[in-house]
Amino acid sequence: MTKTTGVGRPRASGAAASKREARLAVLDAAGELFTGAGYAATTTRAIAERAGLRQASLYYHFPSKEDILAALLEDTVRPSLDVAGGLSAKLAPVGARLWALAYADIHLLGSARHNLGALYLLPEISSPRLARFRAERAELKRVYGSLVAAAGVPGELLGIRTDLVFGLVESIAIVRRDQPDLDVEAHAVEGADSVLRLAGLGEPDAGLRDSARALLED
Amino acid sequence: MTKTTGVGRPRASGAAASKREARLAVLDAAGELFTGAGYAATTTRAIAERAGLRQASLYYHFPSKEDILAALLEDTVRPSLDVAGGLSAKLAPVGARLWALAYADIHLLGSARHNLGALYLLPEISSPRLARFRAERAELKRVYGSLVAAAGVPGELLGIRTDLVFGLVESIAIVRRDQPDLDVEAHAVEGADSVLRLAGLGEPDAGLRDSARALLED
Repeated sequence: MTKTTGVGRPRASGAAASKREARLAVLDAAGELFTGAGYAATTTRAIAERAGLRQASLYYHFPSKEDILAALLEDTVRPSLDVAGGLSAKLAPVGARLWALAYADIHLLGSARHNLGALYLLPEISSPRLARFRAERAELKRVYGSLVAAAGVPGELLGIRTDLVFGLVESIAIVRRDQPDLDVEAHAVEGADSVLRLAGLGEPDAGLRDSARALLED
Repeated sequence: MTKTTGVGRPRASGAAASKREARLAVLDAAGELFTGAGYAATTTRAIAERAGLRQASLYYHFPSKEDILAALLEDTVRPSLDVAGGLSAKLAPVGARLWALAYADIHLLGSARHNLGALYLLPEISSPRLARFRAERAELKRVYGSLVAAAGVPGELLGIRTDLVFGLVESIAIVRRDQPDLDVEAHAVEGADSVLRLAGLGEPDAGLRDSARALLED
């Protein structure tokens, strides 16, 4: 995210907009430093400097470095939970729903300004402050599991097959680390196709992809 | 790895065996600390203490912390390269070869004493001292790519499909983080089955799995 000046943006209050912008500047600076220099090696002082803020302003928004990590990681999951919520309100075959969710999720992880999925393997993930992120990620995984079950994968295989589907989606973080300039759209299409193969739904065709994309558009 | 006392082991020289044991003790202690406390948060002093060695002995084996990381990570790839080399010398259909490689690779990553695949996303991976690990991992990925090509995946899809196959195999590190007591054998079988689905080889049957396992046994 580039720092915005707010030009041309309607806003209720200059102070509120400036607070929101400061929060976003902290998250952007932290995303860059956590994925570049590493989480443990990054101080809140370095984040404040990179964000162009005083440390006191940073602490106003985030009491600790773990709170910044939590906010960043929740942002990698919540939009996909919103997509899942939208899909659940629509009538569509399971294949189109599963394709749409995987496609949107890989796009989110693959095109966020920083490769935040690379932080999923940090030891700090088990900290109490990351409980909400863990719960939201577990909820997203449950949605994948219910779609994989609806696709007909039998109960005794469901747990591992869901692990594989979820792992395939999240593995975009490893690909992105190796290939910073990857073609996210092509990876999202091929990834969603592959999720359908893992769910035993066979080879997706252009018609299924079109109807899945239409589900995401309304 | 438990620290061994060497009892009952044939060995050429007590000094050589003791050096080898010291090296293994360092790697084991570092694997535990890097995956538990984190790479950046772990000092060579802490590794030496955990290994029951003086720091001078540690430096005799590894001039720097990055050299320990490099040795640990090379050990997550080299056995699978050895498996790939063994498979290349045998006559067998591509499905059995690909299944055998994925099965052995997931077993290695899933059952190593520490979850070292979780270190693949560290920023330190791009350091010059990890060049050999990166080259060996790239070589392993090339082997998967040649098998996926031999399975009939067309050239324009080959790169991304290989990324997905390799990502699926390595995603065992994420599963293991979430479920420390996972059933590695079941994950390796289901993972290898799923790799064949991604390669367009359809549903594997018991006959294919048996012949793939036989390839690993000789």
